[in-house]
Amino acid sequence: MKFGGTSVADPEKIQRAAERAVAEKHRGRAVVVVVSAPGEMTDELLTLADRVVPGKKDPRELDQLVSTGEQVGISLFALACQARGAAAVSLTGPQAGIHASGRPTHAQVERIKTKRLLSELSAGKIVAVAGFQGLTPNGDVATLGRGGSDLTAVALASALKTGVCEIFSDVKGIYTADPRIVFEARKLKEISFEEMLELAGAGAQVMQARSIEVAERFGVRIQVRSAFHPQAGTWIVPKEDSVLEKAQVSALALDKSEVRLSIVDVPDRPGVAAQVLSTLSNAGIAVDMIIQSAPAGGKNNISFMTPRGLGHKAQQALSGVAKRLGARVDLHEHVAKVSAVGTGFRHHPEIASTMFDTLAEHKVNIHMIAASDLRISVVVDAKHGESALRALHKAYGLGRR
Amino acid sequence: MKFGGTSVADPEKIQRAAERAVAEKHRGRAVVVVVSAPGEMTDELLTLADRVVPGKKDPRELDQLVSTGEQVGISLFALACQARGAAAVSLTGPQAGIHASGRPTHAQVERIKTKRLLSELSAGKIVAVAGFQGLTPNGDVATLGRGGSDLTAVALASALKTGVCEIFSDVKGIYTADPRIVFEARKLKEISFEEMLELAGAGAQVMQARSIEVAERFGVRIQVRSAFHPQAGTWIVPKEDSVLEKAQVSALALDKSEVRLSIVDVPDRPGVAAQVLSTLSNAGIAVDMIIQSAPAGGKNNISFMTPRGLGHKAQQALSGVAKRLGARVDLHEHVAKVSAVGTGFRHHPEIASTMFDTLAEHKVNIHMIAASDLRISVVVDAKHGESALRALHKAYGLGRR
Repeated sequence: MKFGGTSVADPEKIQRAAERAVAEKHRGRAVVVVVSAPGEMTDELLTLADRVVPGKKDPRELDQLVSTGEQVGISLFALACQARGAAAVSLTGPQAGIHASGRPTHAQVERIKTKRLLSELSAGKIVAVAGFQGLTPNGDVATLGRGGSDLTAVALASALKTGVCEIFSDVKGIYTADPRIVFEARKLKEISFEEMLELAGAGAQVMQARSIEVAERFGVRIQVRSAFHPQAGTWIVPKEDSVLEKAQVSALALDKSEVRLSIVDVPDRPGVAAQVLSTLSNAGIAVDMIIQSAPAGGKNNISFMTPRGLGHKAQQALSGVAKRLGARVDLHEHVAKVSAVGTGFRHHPEIASTMFDTLAEHKVNIHMIAASDLRISVVVDAKHGESALRALHKAYGLGRR
Repeated sequence: MKFGGTSVADPEKIQRAAERAVAEKHRGRAVVVVVSAPGEMTDELLTLADRVVPGKKDPRELDQLVSTGEQVGISLFALACQARGAAAVSLTGPQAGIHASGRPTHAQVERIKTKRLLSELSAGKIVAVAGFQGLTPNGDVATLGRGGSDLTAVALASALKTGVCEIFSDVKGIYTADPRIVFEARKLKEISFEEMLELAGAGAQVMQARSIEVAERFGVRIQVRSAFHPQAGTWIVPKEDSVLEKAQVSALALDKSEVRLSIVDVPDRPGVAAQVLSTLSNAGIAVDMIIQSAPAGGKNNISFMTPRGLGHKAQQALSGVAKRLGARVDLHEHVAKVSAVGTGFRHHPEIASTMFDTLAEHKVNIHMIAASDLRISVVVDAKHGESALRALHKAYGLGRR
């Protein structure tokens, strides 16, 4: 079981989460719980660090600092389990035998030595493990980067061969579209790893792509469910298990967290796109939906999407290349990415045409299009994002059945 | 160097403390800094735990929880040193090789494996070590109990053979009396370990007795000094180093943190006092100044002082014994303990008589008296505490010279 930060944000929520762990224990199961830092604690610690040292900081010391958030979470969680009559113990990442490698703040789980975990479990204890952290070869604690607690949970499920990992959060599962925007949105019973990965890429913030990949690789079935409601959530399952074999749209996503960058009037000659992409990759800038327009007058435009926070950095990084090429870099901030995720798109062009027909009907201009067998994404004006999502949800017949 | 919680209570204070560490480094010294939890963080964490689980809690989990406070302190401290251009690294107690034994929340430092410490020092780094914590044989973190950060500092000074340990706090040193009460109070250049131990027993809260004992045993000279002012503080030194060889009063202390308990009308027969004391010791109640009054009419009174928080517990613990003995237990809450600490008291009765003359002159009633070669303590009405302290400070000629 993994409880995210919002699920343990205050003492009452910690108590409720602990109750669920204790209930599982009473059903005769061995229970390992991965706990995140309560509420905003991680951000509060980072703010504190900024007040001591503004600007760039040693990532090793930041890891030493922020890893305390999860440590607070697990000890409170274990205490709450004990108060409900269950034996429980908390273990930090290092104590739980989670060995990590790579650079601080972006470490990877290298391996898990399960000795301590197994001995606590066989002593009948609920084991609360700190998410998001591991032990480095030289005895330091390193954090696993964004979504790291999910990764801890999936890696533990794999190492302990539980087969199953439940991710508890403030969402009830995976929906056909964000239910805050689309009233008819329906919770899916299951979704394939592939579709879930595409949804993550399309901006759905339920789980990070990294954890989904690891779960798929090691055969861990994930259930995404609510920390506050008892109902079943959505199972993320291997493709062969999925009922969603035929071509169909499973879910939609709306992502307003990205901006669009265009390099305008690039000469139409080989190697230019590669030059642009290597510049971005050297600057550590993630991109999505790279589109090269058809050349006109010996000139091209290259456009891509990048996280909002990296927009200006990307613009700067590209300014040198653009100058040499006699091009200019435009930044478009008021954009939204709308995506349909499913299977079999390649052989069913009607899925794409439904999208374009629907958007045209609603007079939504499309800035960019990218499509694969599992996803079609379009970039539209930000102001059209929600209405496009609602129209497409209806057009694809995704509503409650 | 050891910085207490008030010395690192906010970002600005952390920066000032880091500046002092960096200045020492620039003087060519290898610097190890023990850092406490910033400000009220320990209490805040305990309050949070109380909100999750009121009442009694697993001490092992409390240690897991509160040890994060120091971890926050060291990482912020290391970042602040780095911002001042010095190489620095933070180490938790376990990372610093501090091995502890005994029960959680009251662990003892067992030994220090200095390998990591020495390697970081020889890499030219300022090493910020989390106070108050160590690694247990089964890989847990355990805290060292009250004053534990001082103990960490002294133990590290001993293990690293530094010979010297500087304790930085919000007091400028050891004074002849609390300068907030006695205007003429004078900062001592030095004081012996023995006197310092007596002062701790007399209620001076500068350092815990435990750390002083360890420092004396391992030949670590301590300097108690201000975190906010550059002036030298007070050295705590072995007796042979001390200039205070002749009989004299070195300092006074006023302690309002204790209450007086009396068992009244105890039969005057052997073994009764032992019965009372073993009852208290079994209940884990610390006592000071046990006085048995001269018998009158075959009856005795036994009085002692105990920390205020334990007063009612002690009264309850003794109620059974008292009943069997036909006695009653009285609790006196409005009392203060005034002590004179120094050397050679046994052979110089004029020191004691000066105290009693002075108190009589000022019409201060004395409830209890206890004296040794190094300390005379009297218990008076709480309302007379401050004025007694001022009068005695004058009578012993302790003011600025």
